[in-house]
Amino acid sequence: MNFKETLQGKTREIEEIIKAYLPREEGLQRTVLEAMNYSVLAGGKRLRPMLMQETYGMFGGEGELIHPFMAAIELIHTYSLVHDDLPAMDNDEFRRGKKTTWAVYGEDMGILAGDALLNYAFETAAQAFSLPGAENYAGRALQILTKKAGIYGMIGGQVVDVQAAGKPLEQERLEFIYALKTGALIESSMMIGAVLAGAEEPLVKQVEQAARDVGLAFQIQDDILDVTSSLEVLGKPIHSDDKNEKTTYVTIKGLEQAKADVEQISRRAMETLKSLPCGNPFLLELIEMLITRES
Amino acid sequence: MNFKETLQGKTREIEEIIKAYLPREEGLQRTVLEAMNYSVLAGGKRLRPMLMQETYGMFGGEGELIHPFMAAIELIHTYSLVHDDLPAMDNDEFRRGKKTTWAVYGEDMGILAGDALLNYAFETAAQAFSLPGAENYAGRALQILTKKAGIYGMIGGQVVDVQAAGKPLEQERLEFIYALKTGALIESSMMIGAVLAGAEEPLVKQVEQAARDVGLAFQIQDDILDVTSSLEVLGKPIHSDDKNEKTTYVTIKGLEQAKADVEQISRRAMETLKSLPCGNPFLLELIEMLITRES
Repeated sequence: MNFKETLQGKTREIEEIIKAYLPREEGLQRTVLEAMNYSVLAGGKRLRPMLMQETYGMFGGEGELIHPFMAAIELIHTYSLVHDDLPAMDNDEFRRGKKTTWAVYGEDMGILAGDALLNYAFETAAQAFSLPGAENYAGRALQILTKKAGIYGMIGGQVVDVQAAGKPLEQERLEFIYALKTGALIESSMMIGAVLAGAEEPLVKQVEQAARDVGLAFQIQDDILDVTSSLEVLGKPIHSDDKNEKTTYVTIKGLEQAKADVEQISRRAMETLKSLPCGNPFLLELIEMLITRES
Repeated sequence: MNFKETLQGKTREIEEIIKAYLPREEGLQRTVLEAMNYSVLAGGKRLRPMLMQETYGMFGGEGELIHPFMAAIELIHTYSLVHDDLPAMDNDEFRRGKKTTWAVYGEDMGILAGDALLNYAFETAAQAFSLPGAENYAGRALQILTKKAGIYGMIGGQVVDVQAAGKPLEQERLEFIYALKTGALIESSMMIGAVLAGAEEPLVKQVEQAARDVGLAFQIQDDILDVTSSLEVLGKPIHSDDKNEKTTYVTIKGLEQAKADVEQISRRAMETLKSLPCGNPFLLELIEMLITRES
């Protein structure tokens, strides 16, 4: 099997794991359960659970202890999108070609479905405490999961991003947003994979460092693609970030420097990962694909 | 010291415990940290942490293992109020005589502060895994905390309540809302107190049953007071629930039957608690006060 086929197979497997943890749509509170499942099943590359599972495997992790955390990280990612789309936030009615949660179920149910997804993420992760092996590692994994999703992680980045809307951004603030809003959940995914496989703290720190670089490179590549893809299609660099007068890595550093930085940051991430005492060729290829992707 | 003085002393102590866990208002994401602390410090009886601590003590629990969970349950209660007050929900600009969180910080920050409080509740509870004694009990406590706050607990009740707005309610649906929206966090508080003190599962189940009755009696008493307090003041039963044409326990069962039911349910709660192998006179007095309160 080539990389693409392996990727597809693994994505299908993750899809099944996530589905197994979704709530059954029954009871008087059924509407919110439907809204939650609608949001989770609206698509997505399942990148975070995949990074978690692959890091887990790289450190020799086996068995189902990782499953509730894989579902949990995707539920957290999903809730963040549901709340981002709300009228009082980005006011988006469509995402990935489908109506957003609030656009289907109403604004009040959009808020409640997001709350429910976030709470259910931790409820799902807490199921790990009933599985073998939990006693040693699940507490630490939960500390990472909660911290990286919160005010010192994803929410922190989101707050600074919301407050920056319509204003010029300096590089420090932009990198803060990238590190927290995008990077934190990627760090969380890979760190939890390492922790649950029993990796020692210094190795977990190395994984965190690599994941931070992966997140940053991924986000800068996003900014680059936003310019180059429209250049290709339209012959001129009119792009969504530009229309919103949004500061991006490219508007600060220029296209060529941004490309050079992605190259350098991703090489550093690869070196960090390759310096670990164990390896996972698929994980390296996956990260390579994320960073050098053309769309 | 009489009961009232003891109650005040314990409330002050809990206030200090909660404050010790609040985030420092620093960093680029400072606004959301200010909004979180504003919401938590806007007042409240700290009833849930108190029930938790008293149940913990009743089962012989000692030390600080309970502290992060006491803060966590209050953070969850607070986030639920912050999101309830949002324009797309109850649209309340004032609570307890103070401006609500969104009214001070804006609607977007109201959503984010609520998310942040919910996430931080679990982040705080997860700190327990670094304390002595956590290995045996904190996982189970976290399972209870997450479940009772979520779709099978408080959020589930909130969803049914939101969907019932402006429509007549049958008793089954009303009791579902009371059991989940109000009862679940009270159950969670008392159960976690028992679990962290090392109580066996059958005793935790008894505590859950008693807490369920406490929550129900508390809520029915709320409905009763809504009628009787305006009767006293105004000489006629014009009350807030009536204006909103809201179905309450009193509109379904009548005032006298509601009073008789509170009496019966609270007697049952007391009997369940007294049948436990250990007792806490202050806890019994506290519950008595909650259920028979006149305002």
